[in-house]
Order: sequence, then C-alpha cells, then structure tokens
Amino acid sequence: MNTRLEHDLLGDMEIPADAWYGIQTQRAIDNFAITGVPISHFPQLVEALAMVKMAAAKANTDLGSLDSLKSEAIIAACEEIRDGHLHDQFVVDLIQGGAGTSTNMNANEVIANLALEKLGHPKGQYQYLHPNDDVNRSQSTNDAYPSAACLAIQLAADPLIETIRSLIVALRAKGQEFSDVVKMGRTQMQDAVPMTLGQEFEAFAVTLSEDIDRLGDASKLLCEINLGGTAIGTGINTHPRYAALAVSYLAEISGKPMVPATNLVEATSDMGAFVLFSGVLRRFAIKLSKIANDLRLLSSGPRTGFGEIRLPPMQPGSSIMPGKVNPVIPEAVNQTAYQVIASDLAVTMAAEAGQLQLNAMEPLIIYNLLNSMKMLGSACSMFETRCIKGIEADRERCAELVDRSIGCITALVPHIGYSNASRIAQIALNSGSTVRELVLSEKLLSETELEQLLSPKSMLAPQSYERETRS
Amino acid sequence: MNTRLEHDLLGDMEIPADAWYGIQTQRAIDNFAITGVPISHFPQLVEALAMVKMAAAKANTDLGSLDSLKSEAIIAACEEIRDGHLHDQFVVDLIQGGAGTSTNMNANEVIANLALEKLGHPKGQYQYLHPNDDVNRSQSTNDAYPSAACLAIQLAADPLIETIRSLIVALRAKGQEFSDVVKMGRTQMQDAVPMTLGQEFEAFAVTLSEDIDRLGDASKLLCEINLGGTAIGTGINTHPRYAALAVSYLAEISGKPMVPATNLVEATSDMGAFVLFSGVLRRFAIKLSKIANDLRLLSSGPRTGFGEIRLPPMQPGSSIMPGKVNPVIPEAVNQTAYQVIASDLAVTMAAEAGQLQLNAMEPLIIYNLLNSMKMLGSACSMFETRCIKGIEADRERCAELVDRSIGCITALVPHIGYSNASRIAQIALNSGSTVRELVLSEKLLSETELEQLLSPKSMLAPQSYERETRS
Amino acid sequence: MNTRLEHDLLGDMEIPADAWYGIQTQRAIDNFAITGVPISHFPQLVEALAMVKMAAAKANTDLGSLDSLKSEAIIAACEEIRDGHLHDQFVVDLIQGGAGTSTNMNANEVIANLALEKLGHPKGQYQYLHPNDDVNRSQSTNDAYPSAACLAIQLAADPLIETIRSLIVALRAKGQEFSDVVKMGRTQMQDAVPMTLGQEFEAFAVTLSEDIDRLGDASKLLCEINLGGTAIGTGINTHPRYAALAVSYLAEISGKPMVPATNLVEATSDMGAFVLFSGVLRRFAIKLSKIANDLRLLSSGPRTGFGEIRLPPMQPGSSIMPGKVNPVIPEAVNQTAYQVIASDLAVTMAAEAGQLQLNAMEPLIIYNLLNSMKMLGSACSMFETRCIKGIEADRERCAELVDRSIGCITALVPHIGYSNASRIAQIALNSGSTVRELVLSEKLLSETELEQLLSPKSMLAPQSYERETRS
Amino acid sequence: MNTRLEHDLLGDMEIPADAWYGIQTQRAIDNFAITGVPISHFPQLVEALAMVKMAAAKANTDLGSLDSLKSEAIIAACEEIRDGHLHDQFVVDLIQGGAGTSTNMNANEVIANLALEKLGHPKGQYQYLHPNDDVNRSQSTNDAYPSAACLAIQLAADPLIETIRSLIVALRAKGQEFSDVVKMGRTQMQDAVPMTLGQEFEAFAVTLSEDIDRLGDASKLLCEINLGGTAIGTGINTHPRYAALAVSYLAEISGKPMVPATNLVEATSDMGAFVLFSGVLRRFAIKLSKIANDLRLLSSGPRTGFGEIRLPPMQPGSSIMPGKVNPVIPEAVNQTAYQVIASDLAVTMAAEAGQLQLNAMEPLIIYNLLNSMKMLGSACSMFETRCIKGIEADRERCAELVDRSIGCITALVPHIGYSNASRIAQIALNSGSTVRELVLSEKLLSETELEQLLSPKSMLAPQSYERETRS
Repeated sequence: MNTRLEHDLLGDMEIPADAWYGIQTQRAIDNFAITGVPISHFPQLVEALAMVKMAAAKANTDLGSLDSLKSEAIIAACEEIRDGHLHDQFVVDLIQGGAGTSTNMNANEVIANLALEKLGHPKGQYQYLHPNDDVNRSQSTNDAYPSAACLAIQLAADPLIETIRSLIVALRAKGQEFSDVVKMGRTQMQDAVPMTLGQEFEAFAVTLSEDIDRLGDASKLLCEINLGGTAIGTGINTHPRYAALAVSYLAEISGKPMVPATNLVEATSDMGAFVLFSGVLRRFAIKLSKIANDLRLLSSGPRTGFGEIRLPPMQPGSSIMPGKVNPVIPEAVNQTAYQVIASDLAVTMAAEAGQLQLNAMEPLIIYNLLNSMKMLGSACSMFETRCIKGIEADRERCAELVDRSIGCITALVPHIGYSNASRIAQIALNSGSTVRELVLSEKLLSETELEQLLSPKSMLAPQSYERETRS
Repeated sequence: MNTRLEHDLLGDMEIPADAWYGIQTQRAIDNFAITGVPISHFPQLVEALAMVKMAAAKANTDLGSLDSLKSEAIIAACEEIRDGHLHDQFVVDLIQGGAGTSTNMNANEVIANLALEKLGHPKGQYQYLHPNDDVNRSQSTNDAYPSAACLAIQLAADPLIETIRSLIVALRAKGQEFSDVVKMGRTQMQDAVPMTLGQEFEAFAVTLSEDIDRLGDASKLLCEINLGGTAIGTGINTHPRYAALAVSYLAEISGKPMVPATNLVEATSDMGAFVLFSGVLRRFAIKLSKIANDLRLLSSGPRTGFGEIRLPPMQPGSSIMPGKVNPVIPEAVNQTAYQVIASDLAVTMAAEAGQLQLNAMEPLIIYNLLNSMKMLGSACSMFETRCIKGIEADRERCAELVDRSIGCITALVPHIGYSNASRIAQIALNSGSTVRELVLSEKLLSETELEQLLSPKSMLAPQSYERETRS
Repeated sequence: MNTRLEHDLLGDMEIPADAWYGIQTQRAIDNFAITGVPISHFPQLVEALAMVKMAAAKANTDLGSLDSLKSEAIIAACEEIRDGHLHDQFVVDLIQGGAGTSTNMNANEVIANLALEKLGHPKGQYQYLHPNDDVNRSQSTNDAYPSAACLAIQLAADPLIETIRSLIVALRAKGQEFSDVVKMGRTQMQDAVPMTLGQEFEAFAVTLSEDIDRLGDASKLLCEINLGGTAIGTGINTHPRYAALAVSYLAEISGKPMVPATNLVEATSDMGAFVLFSGVLRRFAIKLSKIANDLRLLSSGPRTGFGEIRLPPMQPGSSIMPGKVNPVIPEAVNQTAYQVIASDLAVTMAAEAGQLQLNAMEPLIIYNLLNSMKMLGSACSMFETRCIKGIEADRERCAELVDRSIGCITALVPHIGYSNASRIAQIALNSGSTVRELVLSEKLLSETELEQLLSPKSMLAPQSYERETRS
Repeated sequence: MNTRLEHDLLGDMEIPADAWYGIQTQRAIDNFAITGVPISHFPQLVEALAMVKMAAAKANTDLGSLDSLKSEAIIAACEEIRDGHLHDQFVVDLIQGGAGTSTNMNANEVIANLALEKLGHPKGQYQYLHPNDDVNRSQSTNDAYPSAACLAIQLAADPLIETIRSLIVALRAKGQEFSDVVKMGRTQMQDAVPMTLGQEFEAFAVTLSEDIDRLGDASKLLCEINLGGTAIGTGINTHPRYAALAVSYLAEISGKPMVPATNLVEATSDMGAFVLFSGVLRRFAIKLSKIANDLRLLSSGPRTGFGEIRLPPMQPGSSIMPGKVNPVIPEAVNQTAYQVIASDLAVTMAAEAGQLQLNAMEPLIIYNLLNSMKMLGSACSMFETRCIKGIEADRERCAELVDRSIGCITALVPHIGYSNASRIAQIALNSGSTVRELVLSEKLLSETELEQLLSPKSMLAPQSYERETRS
C-alpha cells in the first residue's frame, strides 16, 4: 500500500497515500473500534462539521486571523463536503475517547487536505495549510464539536419531523375513515363507555402532533452554542469579536437561528440541551409504543381476541402455524421505542459523568441522539406505509361488542343515581339480562327516555342531561 | 372500636365511626400497602383534589346539576381541606391499582362527610349528600384525578423553584467572592487553561437557572387538563358547557392558568406532560449531580488531592480515621440525584404501559413526580445551607497549581504555531523546565510579548491576538 | 427539653437527655432529611448492625483488645437491640452522605449508651465505654456497614422468599384446578394453538420458583464480607487474626454462612454482589409484571375482552361507571414492579459512582435493595391473597373460543403440509368455514384421522404423528 | 436483475436469482430497516441457527419424520454455514417484528436452497425440500429461535471471557509491578490510609475475575432451552421423544451442555435467563467503568491533579492545547459501559413486554445481548493493549503524597485513642505541623513506638497492636 508520512506530538506515522484524513484520524482508527459505526453513518454530522469550519474560516478572515488564500480554499473544501463529497473519509468510530477530538481532527484533516489540493499542494503538506493552525483556527474541539452536534441534530430533526407529520396525516385519515364506527371504549382493560374508532385514531394523531411542537422547543435550545469558547469557554486564542461573528456566519450558512450561549464556560460543560432533546425523543418513543400496543390489542384475534381492527398482513406469521399473520410492524415499532428509551439512559449517564470544564462523554451522547433519530425516522415511515395506511375496521364486530356490553349504564347515572345503576349493572352481569330490560322492568325510566339516553349521539358527546330530565 | 356500616357495589363494611372517609377508602386501605406512603404525604395533592372538587361543584351549580344547598356544603368542605384541615384522612397508599379511583373516592368521601356535617347530618348518611352522585358529579376518576395531579405538581413546583433560586443565589455569591481566584481549568481530568474559580461557580449558577425556565415550560404543559372528559374523554354525563366552566373555576380557585385540553380523548390517556416534567426533573438532577461531583473533586485532599476549595465540615468523617472530614453533603446530593433519575425510569415504564383509553399506572407516575420534587427540594436546601454557603477557596493552592502547570502554552499557539507549541510542551513536561524558560531560550517570543500573553487578563478572556502580533 | 452535652471533632452539641444516640447521630439528623425514611424502617438492618457489633466485640475480647467488662456490656446491649429493643433510636435518614458513617455511628452510640447503662453509668459518659474506641473497635464504617448490609439483605430475603413460596403455592393450586380447562394459546396477541388454563398458571408458578433459586445464589455472594478490612481493606488497626475470628462469630450469631472475602481491598470498594442481587430482584419484578399483565389480558371484559378468567372483585372500579370492577391488584403489582426496576437503576448508578477505595453511594444502594424487598414482599402477599386465590375460570368462554378458532390447523401440518394448511387457513378466515369442513371437502384427511388429530389429547402434548399417519 | 418467483401465504414475489434466501426473507428485508445491522453481524448467531437446524434434522431422521436423503442434504448445508459459508445471506435486520420468525425463516430458506443445490435442484424448487416442512420440521420459530440465541450467546461468551482473562492478566501484572509503590488510599475523595499501588491494581484484577465466574453461572442458565416446545411449549407437531433427542444432538454438535427446560410452556415465554445474563454484563460494565474512572483520577494532571500514574499517550489530546494528552482509552471504556448499561434497560423493557405464551420482543433482547458482548470484547481488548499494559507509576509522587498526608494518624488510634487522635489531626491540618511532631511534643508515644507504628509494614497489613503496646 502506498503511504505518506505524517507527524504529530506523539511521533511519525504512515498514512495511506490516498487518504484525505491524516495522522490524528489514523490514530483514532487504530484506537477505537467499539461500535463499528463511523461518523459518516450520520451525514448531518459531517455536514454540520463542514459548516462550522466554514463559519470559523469566514470569521477568522474578517478578523484578519486567516489569510484569504487559505480561507477561500478552506471554504471551498467545506462547501464540497457539506454537499456530500468525501463523506467516506469521516471514518472514526462514533464511540471514542477524547471528547470528540478525533472527530474534530478528522474534519480538520480532510478539509486541510482538500484545501491543499485546491491550492495545488499534495496531501499532507501542512506547512501550506495546517489542520490545527488554519482549519481549526480560533477553535477547540470543545466548542467546534458540540456546536456541530447541536447543528447536526437540528438538521436530522427536519426529515424526522417530516416523517412524523406524514404518519400523523395517515392516522388522521383513519380517524376520518372510522368516524362513524361506534365501539366500546376500554379503561383498565375493562369495558367502559362507547366512543368511535375514529376518535381513537384521531387521538393517536393528536398525541404525536404535540411532539412535533416539543421537538421544535427542544431544537431551539440547541441553537445556543458555545462556538468561540474554545478550550473551556474562556475563549482563549480568539478575537473578542470572533464568537459572535462565527456564530452569525453559522446561522447564515445553515439557515438555523444559531446564537452564542450567554455563558460560554457553562455552555462548554453543560449537556442540558442534549438531555432535554433526548427526553423529547424518549417521550415520542413512549407514545409510539403505546400506539403500537393499542393496535396489537385492537387487532388481537382473529377469532379469540378483541378483533375490532385488521392490520394489513406483511408476512406469514409463523414457521409452524399456517395462516397466522402477526402484527409484525407494531412489534418492530415497540422494539424501536425500547431501544430509544434505552439510548436515553446512555445519554443520562454520559451527561451525569461530565467533570469540571468539559464532558468527556459527549461522543456517546451525540451518537445516541443521532442514532435514535435515525431509528425513529425509519420506524415511523415503516409504521405509516406498512401498517397504518392499510388498517381496516371490523364494523360488525365493533357494533356487536357495543350491543353486548353493559357500559351504557353510565349514561343513566345522572337519571337513576350511582347506587341504583350499580345494582342494575350487577344484576345484568350475573343474569345475562340487558341493562335496557332491567331498567324498564323496574320502571326507572320510560322507554322514550331510555332510547334517547342510550343513543350514540347522546353517549359520544357531553349532553345537557338536566335539561332533558326536566323536559 | 366504634364503627358505622357503609355499603357499596361489593356489599357492606364496618368503618371506624370517627373516620371521615368511607367504605371505598376502607377497601383501598385493606387492598394496598406497598409503600406505606399515604396521599397526605404530599399536601399539595390533597389541596389540588379539594380545588378540583370545588371547581366541579361550582360548575355543576351554575349549570343546574347540583342544588345550591349541597353545593355550598361541598364548597365549604373543600375550602377547609384546601386550607389544611383533615389531611390526615387522606390515607390511601400512593401506589394503588385502579388508576387513582381510590384516591378520588378518598377525596369524595371525606368531602361528603365533612359537607354532611355542615348540613347537620351524621357521617355516612349519603342519602343527603353522596360521594359519587354529588361530590363526584360530572366527574370520573379518569379526569378528576389527573387534573388534580397536574395542579398538585404545579403547586409543588412553586416552593421547589424558590428553593432552587435560593441555591442559585448562593452559588452566584460564591462566583462573586471567588471572581479573582485564578486557577487551572481542567478538561478530561487533565490540566487545560486558566480560569477563575468565580467563573466555575458562576457557571453552576447559570446552569441551574436554566432549569427554572425549563420547569416553567414543563409546568405550562400541565395546565392543559382533561377535566370534563369524564370516563374516557367523551364527556359522558356532563353538560356541554361543563368542561370549560369547571376548568375556568379551577383556574380561578388555584391561581394557575388551567385550560381544557383540545382533545379530551387524547388527554385522558396521554401521560406526555408528566413524562416531560419528569424529564426536566431528571435534567436538573443530572446537573446537581455534576456540581456535587465537581465539588468533591475540587475539595479532594486535604493533602493528596486537588485541594482548591474547602467544604464546610458537617460531621466527623470516619469512625476509624480521626480528623477525616468527608464531603457528606455533596454525596447526599449525588444520591438524591440518582434516586430522581431512577424515579424518572419508573415514570417512563408506567407511561409506556398505558392501554387504550386510560393509563392505569397513573398513580405510580404521580407518586414519583411528587416524591422527586420533595426530595430535590430537601436536597437543594441542604446543599445551599450546609455546603455551598460555607465553601472557602484555597487561594494559595490555586495560584501554585497555575504556576506549576504548562497549560498556559495554549495562549502562545496563535504566535508560535501548534507544532512548535506541542514540542515545547513535551520538553517542559519531561524536563521540568517551565514553558516560559523554554520559549525564551528558543527566542520564539520576547520577554515582553510573553508577559503580556501569559497575564491572567490575557488568558481569561478572548483577546485580539492578531492585532497584538502585528503591533 | 432536657439535654446533655456531647463533644466530637467539630465541637460541642446539645443532645436530648433521653436520646440513646449521641452527637454524631444528632449531626446526621440535622444534615440529612431527604427521604424521611429512618434506618428503623428496615428492622433487619438494625438487627444486622447489632450482630456485627456483637461479633466484633467477641473477636476483640478473644484477641485481648477489649476488656471483658466492656465486652459483656456491649454484647448484652447488642442482644437486646437484635431482639427488637430501642429500634426507634435508629433515626438517621437512609439517604445520607458519608458512606454510611452516620448509620454506623448511630449504632455505635446507641450500643455504647445502652452498655453504659448496664455498667451503671449515665448516657454520654463515654470515658467509661466509647462508641469509637470500644464499640467500633477494630472496625471502620467501611467494613462494618457493608457487612451489616450484606447480612440485613439476607435476613430480609428469608421472609420474602417465604412470601414468594406462598404465592407459588397459590398459582400451582390454580394450575391444578384449571388443568382440564382447554383454551386457545396466543402468541403475539394472535390465536395460536390450544393449551390448558392449568398449563398457563403452572407456568406462572414455575417461572417464579426459578427466582427463589436465583435469590439463593445471589444471597450466597452476599456471604463474602469485608469485615476486618477496616478503612480501605488493608485491615489497619486490626489484629492479624481479627478478620477471620470476627466473621466466624458473625456466622455463628446470625446463622448465615458468612465468610471473609478473599481480597479485602477489592471487597471494600466493590458493589458487585449488591448489583447482582438487585438484578435478581429486577428479574423477579419483570416476571411478576408479566404475570399481572397476562391476568389483566385474560380477564379483560366482561363483555368485550378475552374473558377467559374472572379476578375476584376487590373494590368498585369507577367513580362514574356503575358495576365496573377493575383488576386493581394486578395493576398495583405492575406498579410495584416498575418501582423495583427503577430502584435497580439507582443501584446501578450508585455502583458505577464508586471511586478509588470506597463507594460513597453505598447508603443509596442499601436503601433501594431493602426497600425493593419490602415492596415486593407486600406486593406478593397482596397478589396471592387478594387476587390469585380468588381467580375463577370461565370454562364456557374458553371452550367457545377454542371451537371458533382456526389455530387447530397447525396440528394438521405434518399430514397435509405447510402450504396446503396455509391455503386452507386463509379460506377459513375469509369464508367463515371451519378448518374441519374444508379439509374434509378437499378430502385431505378422513373424518377419523381428523377427529384424532384435533382431539385435545393430541394437541396438548407432543404426539408421534408419523406413527399415526403410517397406521 | 435476474429473479426467480417464489410464493407464500401472502402471494407471489420476485427474488434475486442468486439469493440463497427466499420469499419470507425478502419480505422481512422490505419490512424492517431500523438498525441496518443484519444477522450476519453476529456470526455466532448464524452458527447457532445452523446447529439447531442440524440437531433438528438428526432427531427427525432418527424418529422417522424426515427421510435420510433430505436429512443428509440439510445437515451438510448446516455444517457449511456453521463453518462460515454463506453468512452474507443472513440479511434480516436484527430489530424485527414477528418474534424472530424472519430470522428463523432466513435460516430455513438459506439452508433449504443450499440443500437443494446438494440434491441437484435449482434454488426455490421447494417441492423437493421445503424450508418449512423439512428444514423447520418439528420446530417453530418460538422454540428454534430462542434456542439458537441461547447457544449463540454462549458461543459469543467464550471469546469475551478469553478477552477478559487477558485483561485480568495485564492488571495482575501491574499489581505485581507496583507491589512496592506505597501510596495514600482515598475514600470519599479524601486522604485515608496508606496502601500500595499494587494492591489497587490487584483489586481491579480480582473484581473482574469474579465476573468470569458470574458469566459462567449465567451461561449455565442459558443451557436450558425450549427446543421441542414448538409453537407455545406444548410440543404440538413433535414426536414425544423429539425434544430430548434434538437437544441432546444440539449438545453434541455444539459442545455445550444444553438440556431441555423442565417446563416447555414456561420456557417458551420466559426471558429470565436473558435478563440475568444481561444483568451480569451490566455488572461487568459497571466494574469496567469504575476502573476507568479510577485510572482517570489517578492519572489526573500532569501538574494539577493526583498524578500517581501515567497512562500511555495514544493520541494528541487537543486540537487547541499543545502537549495535552488525554485518557482517551478509559474514556472510551466508560462510554462503552454506559452503552451496555443502557442496552440492559432495553432488555428489561422487552422482557417485561412479553404477553401470554410468547415474548414478541425477543429479537431486541437478543440483539442487545450480542451487541453488548461484542462492544465489551472490543473495549476490553482496547483497554488492555492500549492502556493498562503501558501504565507507569510515578513513584516519587506517590511517596511524596504519603509523606505529606495526615492519614497515618489512624494507625495510632489503638494507642492514643480516637479523641486524642482527632484533636492531633485537627491541629496538624490547621498548623501545617506533622502528626509525628505533634505526637512527640505531647509525649503521647515514644519515638521508637512511633517509628514502628508508622512503618509501611505496619500500616499495610493487619497488626497485632495490642501485643506491641504491651511489650
């Protein structure tokens, strides 16, 4: 293999001649092989790193700390990477020691070598343009890396939110489609009072849509970044105007409303915004899981379960039981949700492990957030297209169950009292008689009153019962 | 023991004659004895239940569904309970089956019996005023209980926020007091660059103050309640105007901006607002724990650790090692934080376990939120008064460590380059020479330049280094 | 209030004259008020502390480091406390800083004062018998406290295991009672193949009984203690024969096979045995929760669910829906399980937070283990007596569901092939025809063959199908 | 692309002509794309699946339910796959719905097509040898899949244990190397009493070696499998002797002592053995993390920390701070540990979510266990070779810190009493005087006595102090 020689604090090292990365990346490749998942697995992180480096170069140039020849080459290199070029050169394992230094240096080195090419120099000739002195100028890993992460998460949130929106649309459409399917509501797995299947699906849509707002709120917190704080937030080695300028360039480049954190020392060690974002992903996972659980309950059967809905069959359900079709998509949704909830614990532990001026566990936090978003995006898309859209109601079954139940007695409580109603319910349950029969035989209400009170119209929405009894 | 006889769906039961609660509470006492922690352990929950019942009574009266004699008695009873009366009658264990029915009935029964007394009837004579038909009128546990919980959490948040504010004030005061103590910043447990001890404490203050905002945001979500949704959110057995009216009364009574949730079916089964609130408590716990960890690091010693600060001694530290004083208060803070983080997992699992139209695990969620808030309040107060306020800086030690370190070389990078600086640092480390000596001997900078660059003023805040080098 | 004056490293302090504890306990009362749960909440911990102190006194006496007058007084005091005396004097909050020093000193002080009384001295006259020099002789909190905890957990495990055994007996009895109730098995919420309800309950019994073995295994690990290691495991201030002697006395006194850990330095900082024990409690909680979930599924209804079993009604289920009876006991079991699983996370975080020669978070670990055991004991007892024992099968419903299902087709696969069977199943599902009808009409099997293959006897246990088809 | 047409319950589908898998695998590829991690990522799972299928074929042949021509072809195919052939055909995403049906069918289809080739038939000609009827004969996913998982985990445990052993050897070697380096022990971050650095590393070795035993214990539980239970544990469609025979073949083939579970219904739904195994991995992760934390503390510096040891430098530590070298390997170990602890939560939630006769979340459990083992193996290997082996002691620093400390006073307690010692310690701390000076000046001990008591020999191991003072 052709190689070139590079040098750093620890000595010399051979680098593959065609590698765009350099010695520090190579050391990180050798050091870390925990997950096998490289930076490039999350394109938004690569893009965000490029944008941060571009913003820094622009600010440095404006402030006279980077000459314009180098600056133009760096900016051009960053643009190409942002647009998808050389992503395969971002090779370091996501779980890495060094608080992201290897990721930052991977970016610095690839950008430097690409800029060197633009300036007509071969790779590795860092005397012309240096990964640290030029690309990383006015930066430390400790501000560049988390700033890029804050941006990457927002970039990844955009498609995730679109996917969730699409899932919501599908749920809402089912809410419409099933708006006339009256069924029994259930609380604590026991028959409660009637509702429509449409209300049930509409509630799914509503509950997920709230989380789009929450993702928005949590994203806002990620707009406050510590770029310009350098090593520990004191901004050592930066121009007094650098922080504000670099962040404003980053906002312009990324289209996201990035602003400098008010206290850069705090912002450099604090993982609070990541923890909160993770908490929102967890909340969303909990909701998805609850919906998946409900669909598995409602579609239980085909002959011995609730059987109110039918999920679209996606694959034969059993290697031994012919004809069995299982709710495989909701099951995969549940498992994704559990994984996301577990990742949130990794974020929690990593955040708690921060010490003094930095949190050395940042890479784990960033990995888990990006990975959870990626998995949730896949799961939502799968859920929508391979399950929700194909769900059918078993209208006869729903109607039959409403008829059979005694939950309708609740609607009579304001008219016959809780104690009377309890007694009737118990007799109905033990004897098999219907509520209707018993109420009439005891002359507690007239047939007309009863019809009116037990009509779906009456039971499915708040009614002015006092007015009715007075009439 | 004197008893009275009460009756419900399941039959008759003897109740202690002087008990203000009734048969359903008695059954719950017999059924549940898991934690031994009764409702009354959280006075805000009792107060909130009273306010919900009061609001319902007012709305019912306005809408003609409760006669004013009963209404006045119920409202008077609720006022007394809100003000602290009969809290010892809220006896059911916080961990209970039934999705809070026992808690709701405990409230209904105590209020009914207190109202009966006001009407001149003995306890248990529910034919004159009934726990279900009158106190619980237009309500279900499924709306009254979570609505009360949403309010209780907000009521408990107020004093917690005050306690946190006070802790922040103490941290900020230390930030001021130590603003001139220059010390080495550390990243990844390795010497980094200088900062002040004041910046360190100020960062603690800033990071916690952010969470006051987050608690505010999360509280807002708890203002949307499902009161009026009754059993499953369809509002069965309520007047069409009841939900809006009852919630508006609750807002008035509580002074909190409660509003009806836009979709009551969704709101009845969704635990999202609780999950988010729990996530904020967790975030706060993580931050507290990080601060406690830092203080334990910084005060490590007295002779073989960092020794930059001294915590006030609170108790002899060892039963065998004389003179040992341990950081017992931060240790208790850490443990509280872990417990809160663990409680957040209980909330997560309970929220995920919701099924169909209700989450039967609500009691566990509410217990853990209220308990975490209570523990955090105690921990913050202890932290402030028994630790933070008494912290002293070891100024000599801080200065000595700065002198000894080689981290100052970072300030020279823009002037001598990263590679030169790396080389010098390595020599310094191996030889024991100082950076200053080596830079001068290599004539990389003049003595004046060096003095300027290594002055605290220069290192502690962003500097316009280009300008300087050009001059 | 009458007081006496005591003195320690930090100065003088007034102690209530009638308190059996002393100054260091008083400081801990003042310092820690996080949970409000005192040591005495867990009587086994108090007993274990007394036994450890007794064992130490005996070993010290044998080795000549404690005179027999003091020794006898200390031993007599410990015996009384072990037998239940003065437990209310163990007042320190379970969540405490200091790695248990306050708990250890609470024990030392109460024992010293009780021993002083036996020697005819008033409380606090420590010149005659000292909490540290005499009661704590040859000990540090760092060995005495975790050793007591290891013992306390075993003492608490005994009644827990008895309670679990009793629950298993009840489940097994139901397994017998329902051994002839044929029902449909379900996998992934879809109809699978027939089984008996007895097999289902027997499986519950079997799965829990495995955990009795696991609790036994995990207890064994807790028998290895670090008593004699004193401050950091080097055994400073002990006689070379002390460790072995003290542990052997403890084994004798407690009746538990306690042995000295082979490496006392490791044993002093390692929380591994606690983590494993916690993991077993978690596993048990998971299983309990699964059983509770299953019972809630199987009893869902009464009219619109699975309805295969009826749980005994324990309380009216709803404040608004008359006649509703909810599975409140299983719900409380689920919540207990979640709390135990959450506590296991607290243990995990605390264990990970150990530093260097000690884990300062031991109190949190011990609190959570003892609390989880207490809650699980209550939950199992409640589960057995208030739910399992009263469960009834709905035999007609079970039989009807078996008849209605198409899962029996699985039994035909070895005879008609998977593809044929899949096709038939699909037709049955779509047409409403039964499997039996379709197989006969296609002449895939004779009526006799079919009868034989679909008999419960044939489907409920492995059959030699090849033999049958050959016949 | 060339394709062939295959058919299943849901209809026809085009399969790539050169794919060794078939239609059900193809559906699973289309359905699931959550993690992007295919079965083949874990070669032991592929091997275990092949062994299970081989064992089933042998048992079926013995019992006359599979003809020997087919059997030989299946067995030969399984052998090839076990030996590494066609692993790239195991393509289904690890997180999948269907309780592992897709993984099982992926195996069935690849084996069937490979066996078909051996019989001279093209791929997909299942009339000659069928994935379900022949390869899956007498099996269900519900027994074949978890049985394979139990085996796979054991196969993966072997190399993990070897890696851990190697790490232990390295730690023990450092224990030897540093056995004469006297240093201060620390508890609660405060100076305690002296020990050797060797004892510290030896304790690391001991604590990890205990977990090799625990992994062994936990593996034993995984030897009890439900093979032969088929769909729900009742063994439907198997010969009465099949279960015992198949498991005994599996034991023979795998070299692992597999045995049939005593209750197959229980074993089919219970995840207990996985939960326990996960708990052991978690425990190991906690210990690794604690060691990594300690190494980061002990190596803190170079100038302002503890500085007792030096970790080998693996990469430049900072993009901005020259000369900085960070503990990147321990940091990566910490992060791996957190990820494993988080995965354990996913296992917990998945285990709790089991319903009735099966746990549909098995795939998530198996994924997390295999992934955690893989990550831990990498982390241990990295830890050993890139950190532990290169650790150096700073002997001067260690000695200097011991000299400076006042912790030695503990050794005097048995001779001068706890109160005297506390007083002296306090004076020493405040005045800067040494303990030695103060004790002599107060004439509490003679110089000879003092020398003897404060010698390392005396302080590092239990001493018979009474004997000495008497002499």
